[in-house]
Amino acid sequence: MTRPLSYCLLLAALCCAAPAQAEEGMWTFDNFPRAKVKATYGFDADDAWLQRVMRASARLGGGCSGSFVSPRGLVVTNHHCVSACIQALSTKKRDFAALGFVAKTEAQEQRCPDMEVHQLIQITDVTATVTQSTQGLSGQQFHDALKAVEARLEKECQSNEQTRCDVVRLYRGGQFRLHRYKRFSDVRLAFAPERAAAFFGGDPYNFTFPRFDLDVSFIRVRQDGKSATTPDHFRWSRTPVSEGTLTFVSGNPGSTERLLTVAQLLYQRDVALPESLLSLAELRGVLTEFGRRGQEERRISEDVLFGVENRYKGLRGRWQALMAGAIVEQRLATERQLRAAVATRPALQVDPKGAWDAIAKATKRQAELRKPYVYIEGNGGAGTALMRIARTLVRGTAELAVPNEKRLEEYSDASLPTLKQSLFSTAPIYNSLQILMLTHSFTKIREELGPNHPFVTKALGPRSPDELATHLVKGTRLAEVAFRRKLWQGGVGAVQEAAKTDALLAYALMIDGDARAVRKLWETEVDAVILKNSEVIAKARFALQGTQTYPDATFSARLSYGTVKGYEEEGSTIAPVTTFAGAFERHTGREPFALPQTWLAAKAKLDLNTPLNFATTNDIIGGNSGSPVIDREAAVVGLIFDGNLASLGGDYGYDALVNRAVVVSSVGIWHALEKIYGAQRLINELVP
Amino acid sequence: MTRPLSYCLLLAALCCAAPAQAEEGMWTFDNFPRAKVKATYGFDADDAWLQRVMRASARLGGGCSGSFVSPRGLVVTNHHCVSACIQALSTKKRDFAALGFVAKTEAQEQRCPDMEVHQLIQITDVTATVTQSTQGLSGQQFHDALKAVEARLEKECQSNEQTRCDVVRLYRGGQFRLHRYKRFSDVRLAFAPERAAAFFGGDPYNFTFPRFDLDVSFIRVRQDGKSATTPDHFRWSRTPVSEGTLTFVSGNPGSTERLLTVAQLLYQRDVALPESLLSLAELRGVLTEFGRRGQEERRISEDVLFGVENRYKGLRGRWQALMAGAIVEQRLATERQLRAAVATRPALQVDPKGAWDAIAKATKRQAELRKPYVYIEGNGGAGTALMRIARTLVRGTAELAVPNEKRLEEYSDASLPTLKQSLFSTAPIYNSLQILMLTHSFTKIREELGPNHPFVTKALGPRSPDELATHLVKGTRLAEVAFRRKLWQGGVGAVQEAAKTDALLAYALMIDGDARAVRKLWETEVDAVILKNSEVIAKARFALQGTQTYPDATFSARLSYGTVKGYEEEGSTIAPVTTFAGAFERHTGREPFALPQTWLAAKAKLDLNTPLNFATTNDIIGGNSGSPVIDREAAVVGLIFDGNLASLGGDYGYDALVNRAVVVSSVGIWHALEKIYGAQRLINELVP
Repeated sequence: MTRPLSYCLLLAALCCAAPAQAEEGMWTFDNFPRAKVKATYGFDADDAWLQRVMRASARLGGGCSGSFVSPRGLVVTNHHCVSACIQALSTKKRDFAALGFVAKTEAQEQRCPDMEVHQLIQITDVTATVTQSTQGLSGQQFHDALKAVEARLEKECQSNEQTRCDVVRLYRGGQFRLHRYKRFSDVRLAFAPERAAAFFGGDPYNFTFPRFDLDVSFIRVRQDGKSATTPDHFRWSRTPVSEGTLTFVSGNPGSTERLLTVAQLLYQRDVALPESLLSLAELRGVLTEFGRRGQEERRISEDVLFGVENRYKGLRGRWQALMAGAIVEQRLATERQLRAAVATRPALQVDPKGAWDAIAKATKRQAELRKPYVYIEGNGGAGTALMRIARTLVRGTAELAVPNEKRLEEYSDASLPTLKQSLFSTAPIYNSLQILMLTHSFTKIREELGPNHPFVTKALGPRSPDELATHLVKGTRLAEVAFRRKLWQGGVGAVQEAAKTDALLAYALMIDGDARAVRKLWETEVDAVILKNSEVIAKARFALQGTQTYPDATFSARLSYGTVKGYEEEGSTIAPVTTFAGAFERHTGREPFALPQTWLAAKAKLDLNTPLNFATTNDIIGGNSGSPVIDREAAVVGLIFDGNLASLGGDYGYDALVNRAVVVSSVGIWHALEKIYGAQRLINELVP
Repeated sequence: MTRPLSYCLLLAALCCAAPAQAEEGMWTFDNFPRAKVKATYGFDADDAWLQRVMRASARLGGGCSGSFVSPRGLVVTNHHCVSACIQALSTKKRDFAALGFVAKTEAQEQRCPDMEVHQLIQITDVTATVTQSTQGLSGQQFHDALKAVEARLEKECQSNEQTRCDVVRLYRGGQFRLHRYKRFSDVRLAFAPERAAAFFGGDPYNFTFPRFDLDVSFIRVRQDGKSATTPDHFRWSRTPVSEGTLTFVSGNPGSTERLLTVAQLLYQRDVALPESLLSLAELRGVLTEFGRRGQEERRISEDVLFGVENRYKGLRGRWQALMAGAIVEQRLATERQLRAAVATRPALQVDPKGAWDAIAKATKRQAELRKPYVYIEGNGGAGTALMRIARTLVRGTAELAVPNEKRLEEYSDASLPTLKQSLFSTAPIYNSLQILMLTHSFTKIREELGPNHPFVTKALGPRSPDELATHLVKGTRLAEVAFRRKLWQGGVGAVQEAAKTDALLAYALMIDGDARAVRKLWETEVDAVILKNSEVIAKARFALQGTQTYPDATFSARLSYGTVKGYEEEGSTIAPVTTFAGAFERHTGREPFALPQTWLAAKAKLDLNTPLNFATTNDIIGGNSGSPVIDREAAVVGLIFDGNLASLGGDYGYDALVNRAVVVSSVGIWHALEKIYGAQRLINELVP
């Protein structure tokens, strides 16, 4: 399923593709190809329409998209976008993932402990300010100056905790935008179906089509103690789509890499992707077997397992797309062309060899530094809530003692509201799962760095991974939210004092220096070199091609267009729309092909020919999950929840013949709310 | 550790390298480079010496090597070569892997239920006979004719169950040898140290050096109810080796691929290796977590986990060696040279394009067929004892009804004694582990073939993988050896009758047709094409280069030479010999760095400067585990038990600078037997 951000390491990507083909493109709202769409479909997406769509769309903190669908703060998104909240609200006795959740009244809607919703209000071009600040710099200086100006701009924009501002790097050719959002941090769960219905077919069906998933949930944003007023919202369509219906997707695609240099692609293909895959495969095995211990182990681990499996399948598809060879060959050709074109236009002031060669050299360094970076700075248990909390407390309190513009970016003033929301989350923490994940993490640190690596010797000491993990988890009070707050407020001194008796804090304190050192190397010798030289290349490309194209995805607002359409796979034609009947046909009664009791009980009441899912040609990627799919009247006809297998190469390019976005139908959702879940209260709130 | 055969799919490999460099080479006994060794080291390995070494060496059924070290059937090999036996003899209350095993008397030596030892007696050149039979044939006909002549030759040679005969394919250029072995099927465990000593450092230290492992065990072969008489045996050296000592390794290297065509290498690099690695990584995770459930789960699964981890680390090293690029580039260059040389000598009657291109085409087909082959014919639970038994009964009884020369090769008359030994093994079968592995297997079948694949639909039916696995394991009587014997004797009819009430037999019967169909495709369109064309290429190479070179490894008797030697790694020099002191220095008390109590208790009695392990330049590979390392007097100075990390690329080539074989010292073994284990009975039997 399409949700990468909480899992992916986002590399600032190269941007500005060659002129876009067919329905390709994740366009910015200020550069949408209106003329092309009008010429092809006879529909003009004018400024008022674009503005309306932008403001009715939503971004979800965890790496998803959504949309406002009522004037009272009701937001619709995917089930898998709120699964962490569903798990956090569940207990051993009351498992909402298994049972579903239908709030009968607004008062029954329950607060998600670690979730926020952003509504984009304003886009400002800050290109001149940013590029002036980094002019003539390189290496560490370039990196620091860029970070500083971004931190300053964001802080100036962000008036209070109900605002969120991001400087968005576009095109990497000196295009920067300041995005100003309304920030909602009080988010309530209003409705979620059973996981069995939302994720029917489970991992075997993930990233495939035809599909039969009710991957939807409704949440509500509140402000000042009551449901927020949201005049900008979408209507809900009750008209079924059909082959050829024009569809727009408004959302926040996370990351694409459609114009990485060849050297960067090869680093992905030969180093980053296979190493990530091997690590995920093993963790998948560990979690799968842990879940087989019993009902409760399964409940507390299934959301983590889903994340791992989803990422594994997604990355494996990406890797296979790269290994197939055509992408790399094509990239070689376009790179050669661009280098030749640049070489004949010296006025561009680009050293055509220099930039590409500098990036190639940086990727060699990246390959050398990857393991230390991933295992010392990155994954020393980063997937573990407790370790993340400990390291945030240690590092965050130290960072707050330095000026905003000099901090690591995740501790800038503009980032703090979101960071604190996560740090003080009341989501339950299960020791058995923490120990499991930390054990795995320490085992991998030892294996990948080698048992004699100085960091390994220091981190593990004489302990086995299992023993250290148990020692740290049982020896910490960080599961208590109040304790975390006290430490955060107390600052460095309080953390150091507490570390004398808190094993996990002591560990985080002990390794922070090593982790910072590796990060600094990475930022200076990899990130800064790639960013700086990508900007040089992108400027040249920009000068040659202008804005006929779209920037790579950066988890910021984008709009794509397409149509409802089937496709050919292994010689047979796949129809674009599925129905409830298909779900019942595939129901075997055994997970993951077991429809929930509510469905079986309601079967007689259902019109089985009602559309459930459909496929479109919209160009999407992870981060688009939950995005509204709208028609020309800007009414929601569905929600993005997945892409097909062929779309997994979408990171690197778009192929209109086979790439498909997978959508849960608005008509299907309405039908289920009414006939299966009796959620009349929500239906009444939707605006048909 | 160096033990591939029980885990690896052995592809008949291309052979005959370019003239060997330095100490490279796994030489056949009838083509050992005597002159070169004499010129370099002043030692002439004459025929009598070679014959003596060959006959004192042993091959172990499970994929290891060993040697006779007394006149009364005593064989020495690695601990990890008999770990399956150790586990089979253990119970919940008496775990010999944890406790070690020291038989005080010969009567206390315990029978390994599924182990056999082969002693090579005679090598006959059968090249003319074999090549005549396949002359002018191709595809299925080539495959069938080759199989038939091999089956016939082996059957004629194999007079009784105490004999084993193999036709060995050498050089693939029309060189075939018939190896005649004395077969010992009554094998007793005499001595094994604790796993903690044998595998000190565990997976983190595996494939590294310096090492501190007492990876040794002693077994005894019996005949006619008493210890076998073995006049051909090695003396045991009590003289420590030192840098420069000339060493020979006599053993059975399993498989090398030093002259695959480039197309074959790319298939390995891009398809087979990464897919195998991902599958192993996940299984590793599953087994690791299963072992964390408790003492008993750990005990019954640790040997399987060791196999998986060993193979994972080994294949990962191989894959990284291939990804590094130099191997493929070099292979491209030599292939180009050979093609050019062949093209200028038409008398060779080779179509220089044809053979390489045919192989390239076959590897494309191989990539297409790999998943069906691996998941339908190969891994439908092949790693599971019960599934293996069920499928052997179904297929074996059917095969026995057709003439020897037409059978699948593993059911030829010559193969039956070994097959039956395994089929009727009394090794315990643990249902929980069987269900675990089968569940994993069915999950992978569904995932890799896709949930809608006809075979998946047929195999799983409406059941989940877990449910099917449980159903099959709980619904079978195949854990009873007597039941298996009855079915084997009863033949097809008995199996079909039993399948009416035995769920696992019914399953094996149901899928056998599908599995045979995939295998036939693979044999005809992949194996036969590659074999036939490899022979064409190898003949040409042979005509150009003669026997200045050695064939690829095929788990048959080979002799390599080298010296005790350190090496450089990451700027520092690694000394070639380690001592007991090093083990104690690295003892942390926590697995896998915890020496057993016997060692701690004996510490004061030990001379800590006694050599424990050492490194040599001998060219070895998986299958060589347990091989005697001998000096010029043909006395055992140690046993191969591993290679260093750099040796993992050894499948594709040998680099004298960094490739090292890792050896447990004969002096160290003697010292441990005497001072730690009080195994005076064995010491008295060794011939100093």
